[in-house]
Amino acid sequence: MEGSLIEVTFEDPKEVGECEHQQGKGGGGGLRDIGELNVPLAVPYLDQPPTPLHFYRDWVCPNRPCIIRHALQHWPALQKWSLPYLRAAAGSTEVSVAVTPDGYADAVRGDRFVMPAERRLPLSCVLDVLEGRAQHPGVLYVQKQCSNLPTELPQLLSDLEPHVPWASEALGKMPDAVNFWLGEAAAVTSLHKDHYENLYCVVSGEKHFLLHPPSDRPFIPYEMYTPATYQLTEAGSFKMVDEEAMEKVPWIPLDPLAPDLARYPSYSQAQALRCTVRAGEMLYLPALWFHHVRQSHGCIAVNFWYDMEYDLKYSYFQLLDSLTKASGLA
Amino acid sequence: MEGSLIEVTFEDPKEVGECEHQQGKGGGGGLRDIGELNVPLAVPYLDQPPTPLHFYRDWVCPNRPCIIRHALQHWPALQKWSLPYLRAAAGSTEVSVAVTPDGYADAVRGDRFVMPAERRLPLSCVLDVLEGRAQHPGVLYVQKQCSNLPTELPQLLSDLEPHVPWASEALGKMPDAVNFWLGEAAAVTSLHKDHYENLYCVVSGEKHFLLHPPSDRPFIPYEMYTPATYQLTEAGSFKMVDEEAMEKVPWIPLDPLAPDLARYPSYSQAQALRCTVRAGEMLYLPALWFHHVRQSHGCIAVNFWYDMEYDLKYSYFQLLDSLTKASGLA
Repeated sequence: MEGSLIEVTFEDPKEVGECEHQQGKGGGGGLRDIGELNVPLAVPYLDQPPTPLHFYRDWVCPNRPCIIRHALQHWPALQKWSLPYLRAAAGSTEVSVAVTPDGYADAVRGDRFVMPAERRLPLSCVLDVLEGRAQHPGVLYVQKQCSNLPTELPQLLSDLEPHVPWASEALGKMPDAVNFWLGEAAAVTSLHKDHYENLYCVVSGEKHFLLHPPSDRPFIPYEMYTPATYQLTEAGSFKMVDEEAMEKVPWIPLDPLAPDLARYPSYSQAQALRCTVRAGEMLYLPALWFHHVRQSHGCIAVNFWYDMEYDLKYSYFQLLDSLTKASGLA
Repeated sequence: MEGSLIEVTFEDPKEVGECEHQQGKGGGGGLRDIGELNVPLAVPYLDQPPTPLHFYRDWVCPNRPCIIRHALQHWPALQKWSLPYLRAAAGSTEVSVAVTPDGYADAVRGDRFVMPAERRLPLSCVLDVLEGRAQHPGVLYVQKQCSNLPTELPQLLSDLEPHVPWASEALGKMPDAVNFWLGEAAAVTSLHKDHYENLYCVVSGEKHFLLHPPSDRPFIPYEMYTPATYQLTEAGSFKMVDEEAMEKVPWIPLDPLAPDLARYPSYSQAQALRCTVRAGEMLYLPALWFHHVRQSHGCIAVNFWYDMEYDLKYSYFQLLDSLTKASGLA
C-alpha cells in the first residue's frame, strides 16, 4: 500500500501527443521531477524585501519558504527590544503565559494531546524567570496566538509596523493576527501546520525551525488523541486533566528531532529543511508547511498571520491528505 | 474503482486539533467544498486589464479563466483587420494552412490520431475561399502554432503589441509564441490542453470555447492512437497516411459537443464551461485547462503563449493524472 501511493504521487508520465503542439520546446515539464521542483534543499535568503508581485509569484503561489533580510531594519523594536526594555515598557502588564512541565505545549504525551496550563502573569514575572531572578514551576512561554501583541501589549505597538506592507499588498488583505513570542530555551513548539501564510520576525535572539513541505504529508504520522490540559497545582506540580467535552483530535506524535523510525518508518522518506532565523530576519513560512520550532533563551519575536487562499495548494494538500488516510499510510 | 477515486478526491476532512490554534476563525477552509472553490459556474468578465499583481494573484495562481474587455482597444488591428485589409496587406504572402476533410485537425478518427495536411498557400488563396470566390478541397485553417504571426506575417506586426505588457510583467517573461488564426466556420480544434498560459485575443468575429478545468481529468477519457497525417491528393481527395516513425500518442477520443456517454460514462461527471469571446475581448485560458474551440466564419484572432510555471498546479495535475491512470478510470 505504502509503495503504491508513493509511486503514484511521484510518477511523471510524458505526454507525447500533446507535445506535437509544442515544437521547439525542449521537452517541457513532462520530464521534470516533481519533488525536486517544489522542495528546495535549503531555505533561500532574500537580501531585501521582495516587491508584492515577486513575493506572490515567486514564494506565495509556489508555496516556498524564504528568509528575508533587511525587512525589519526600520522597526524601532530591532534596536530597542531587550528584556530590560520590555520590563520598563510593560513590566506591570498582565500577559497570558503557557506553562508546561517540559516545555512542550500542544504535544502528545502517552495517549493524550496535552495543551499547556495558561496563567495570567505580569510580564515582569516572566522576565524575572528569564533573567534568573526568580523560579517558576515548569517552562514559561508567552505565545498566545490570538493577536496577543495588540490585545495584551498595546504599548509595544509603536515599536513596529502594524503589518508587513509589501505582504499585505501582495496578499490583498491585512493580517488576521499579530503575535508576540517570548520564552525560555526549553519551550518548544511541536510539529504541526497552520492554515496561514506566516511572516515570522525575530527581533532578538534566534529561532530554530525544522520544516517539512506539505508534500511530505504521506510520511508524517497523525493519530487521534484524547485532549487534555495541564493544570498547575498550588504545590507547583502539574496534573493532566482530560477535556471531557472535546472530541478526540488528530495530532502528530512524532518528534522530528528524535524520530521513532521503528514505529514510523515512512518518516525516513520525508525531507526536513532546517533553518535558523536570526535577529532582524523574517521567515516566510508558507501555509500548510509543517514546522517544529525551538529558540534561544529569551528570544523575542513577532509573527504576522495572513489567512491563506483556499486555492490549488489547499486542494492539492487535501487530496494528498485524503489519499494518505485512504491508504492507511499515515 | 471509479467511485472510490472520486470520493477520495473530494473528501474534505476537518482537522479539529489544529483549529485550537485558530480561535476566532469561523471554521476555516476545512468545511469548504473544493469543487465549488476552484471551478466557477461561468467565465467571469473583467471590464479592464488587471494589474500584474491582480492578474497573477486572482487568475494565474488559482488557475482560473476570465474574459478581459478593453484590453485590445489600442491595437490598430481592432479597427483595421478585415478580410479585404489582410488581402491588401499580405495577400501575396505564403502561409501554412492546415487542411482537413471535415474541419477537425488533431483529432481521433477510428483508431488513428490524425493531423492535418499542411499546405503553403498565398494568404489571398485562403481569403478567396473564405469570401466564397474560390473552392478548395476540405476545410482551411491558418493555425500554425509556432509563432506564425511574426514568422509568416511580419507585415501585420505593427498593428498590435508584440506581447501583453501586464501579462508579461505578471509572469516575469515574454511570450514563447504569438499565433495568428484565420479559418472557416467548419474548422474545429478538438478537446486538448496545453502547457501554456494562453491569452487569446479575438480581433474580428467570435470564438466559442468549451472548457474543462484540470480537475475534470478523471472524467475525460484518453486512449492511445497510431498517429497519421492527412494527405491531399492531386485529385482533391484526402488519404490518411500513418506516421510509421512515431510512437502511439495519447489523445481524447471524446467530442464534448456530442459525448458518447454510453462509452464514456464518467464524462457525465465533468462540468463543461462554455463561453464566447467576441471581437475586442481577450480570454485568459489558464495552463492545463482542456479546451475545444469553434469559431465564426472568417474569425481573425491572435494568441500569446507564455510557458507555464511547473509549480503546484502542475504537481496537482500530474497527481490527478497518475491516479486516474492507476485507477483505470480514464
